[in-house]
Order: sequence, then C-alpha cells, then structure tokens
Amino acid sequence: MFVLGIDPGLTRCGYCVISVADGRARAMGVLTTDKDLAVPLRLAELAADVRGLLDEFPPQAVAVERVLFQSNVRTAMGVGQASGVVMAEAASRGIEVVEYSPNQVKGAVAGHGNADKVQVQTMVQVLLDLDAPPRPADAADAAAIALTHLAMTGGRTRPARSSRPRSTGVVA
Amino acid sequence: MFVLGIDPGLTRCGYCVISVADGRARAMGVLTTDKDLAVPLRLAELAADVRGLLDEFPPQAVAVERVLFQSNVRTAMGVGQASGVVMAEAASRGIEVVEYSPNQVKGAVAGHGNADKVQVQTMVQVLLDLDAPPRPADAADAAAIALTHLAMTGGRTRPARSSRPRSTGVVA
Repeated sequence: MFVLGIDPGLTRCGYCVISVADGRARAMGVLTTDKDLAVPLRLAELAADVRGLLDEFPPQAVAVERVLFQSNVRTAMGVGQASGVVMAEAASRGIEVVEYSPNQVKGAVAGHGNADKVQVQTMVQVLLDLDAPPRPADAADAAAIALTHLAMTGGRTRPARSSRPRSTGVVA
Repeated sequence: MFVLGIDPGLTRCGYCVISVADGRARAMGVLTTDKDLAVPLRLAELAADVRGLLDEFPPQAVAVERVLFQSNVRTAMGVGQASGVVMAEAASRGIEVVEYSPNQVKGAVAGHGNADKVQVQTMVQVLLDLDAPPRPADAADAAAIALTHLAMTGGRTRPARSSRPRSTGVVA
C-alpha cells in the first residue's frame, strides 16, 4: 500500500507516492494546469490527474498540506480550491485524508517547526535514500508531507540503510 | 435545460435550479455538511450532493459566486474548497461553469453593484415570481447567481406576469 502526499496548488500541485512497505518513493512530481484555461477547467484537469494517481497507486492514506491563508492571499484561492478537489476525490473513495500544517511537516521531517526549505529538502533526501534532494520543490514538499504522515502514524520513515530501529507491522 | 446557481460554502452551500424555458425556479435550497466531521469527509459529502443535483437537473451552465478573500478570512478556506469541488464536478462533465463576482450579481439582479441583501432578495422574488423572498438567504443568493447568468447570456429573467418584453429563443 501507499501513502500519497500532496502539496496542493492549482498551477503546480506537488505529489509523492511512498510505499509503506519499504518507505521508498514510487512516484514523485508535479501536476500542472494551464494558466490560460478557465479555473473550472483547470480544476477538472487536476481532478482527473488525481484520479489517475489514486488508480495507479491506491493509497491507504492521502496526506495534504493544510493551507494557511495568511501566507499569500493572491494564490490562496487557487490553493484552497485545489486542496478541496484533491480531498474530495480521495475521501469520495473512502480513503483516509489527513491534513498537516507546514509546522507539523517541518517538525516531523526536520525535527523542529522552524526548519527552512533546504533543511526539509535535505531530510527528505536522507529519509527517502535519494542521491540528491528531490526536484522540483513542490515534489519535495509533497514528499515531506507523505513522510510526515508515516512518522505520525508510526510508519517507517527511515531509509533502508539506516541503522535506527524501525517499527514493524505497518506493511499494508 | 437548466441553469444551476451555486453560492459555495462548506457548512452551507446554496443552490437554485432555474428552467431556461420559463425562467422559473425548479429547485432551491441549501446543501449542508456536518461541522463535526473532518473537512475531507464534508467535501466528499458536498461533492456527492452536487452530483445528485447535476443528475436530477442536467444544467447547460453552472453559475458560481466568485469567492473574494478579503471578506472573511476565517471562512474563506472552506468556501474556496467548496467552490473548487463544485466547479470540478461540473466541469468534469463538460458543463460550462461561469463565475460571477458579488458586484456582478448585484448589478445584474438589482441594477447596481451597491444593492444590499434585502434589495437583491426582493428582486429575486420578483424575477422568479415567488410569493415571498426565497429562504434561506443562501438559497436566495444562489438564485441571484443563476439569474445573473441568465441575464448575462440573454436568457429570460423576468417573471411570466411581467409586462416587459422578453428575449426568446433561449429554450434549450
């Protein structure tokens, strides 16, 4: 089974699929929509892309970054609409959907809520056992969100080469 | 054919179905979700309710109030998410979705963008030939949005008893 992390956005929606069995990333990238299209069409396109991900990697949970309005009022509307579409698509299938705040993500992945983007990306690289920090940044953010869910629910979040003891019994 | 007006909201989502043929309201009300449920479940519930409306009254267009963030930051997130879900559901079916700003709605229905709520509700009553202003307010707002779309696209927006000349040829 998989955990799907989503960094919601209308123009760029980061996603990362992590296998619960081994903690490895199976797919990671960005769903984009055409800025020149009308918003409803872009939302429909995003919904179709999300359905495709849910079909290809049926997740046991979808972890979504909770949108905070204060950060950027100009783009907040599209982010809110996109997060609504993602959450409705997943919850409509009976999939557990959990929201995490940016501070929860930083805390879970980098150890403290004041971690900067580079620290988070470096930790994502380590936790997923990647050769380089994931690119683009939206995908790295989505990976951090998925890793947060694994950490919060006792799933394995350490790379296979880590010597840390791991929880077991989370293989779906 | 129908026009579906939507006043988006997560807790209360107003809707109004107007028949293009005669300009009468066929259905009007509020889709509600349980505040005690998690947001993703509420969005899934809203999506299912919207699909039910689209099934029962296949619209040629869905008119949605454009959310303005300045108005109420506290509820704006839920409104944005709800509007995203509604627009994605309709656009995914190939239905035209059009957003109208509050000022456009006031201007189209009450004649000027500074109209107050009571004026808009009174005009909705007149335009839909109702015995009283529609209740609750969310439903009246949704009716105003649907009427705005009819006015903007040349559809009939005057009640049957009106002596005003009417546009014709908009029967779907």
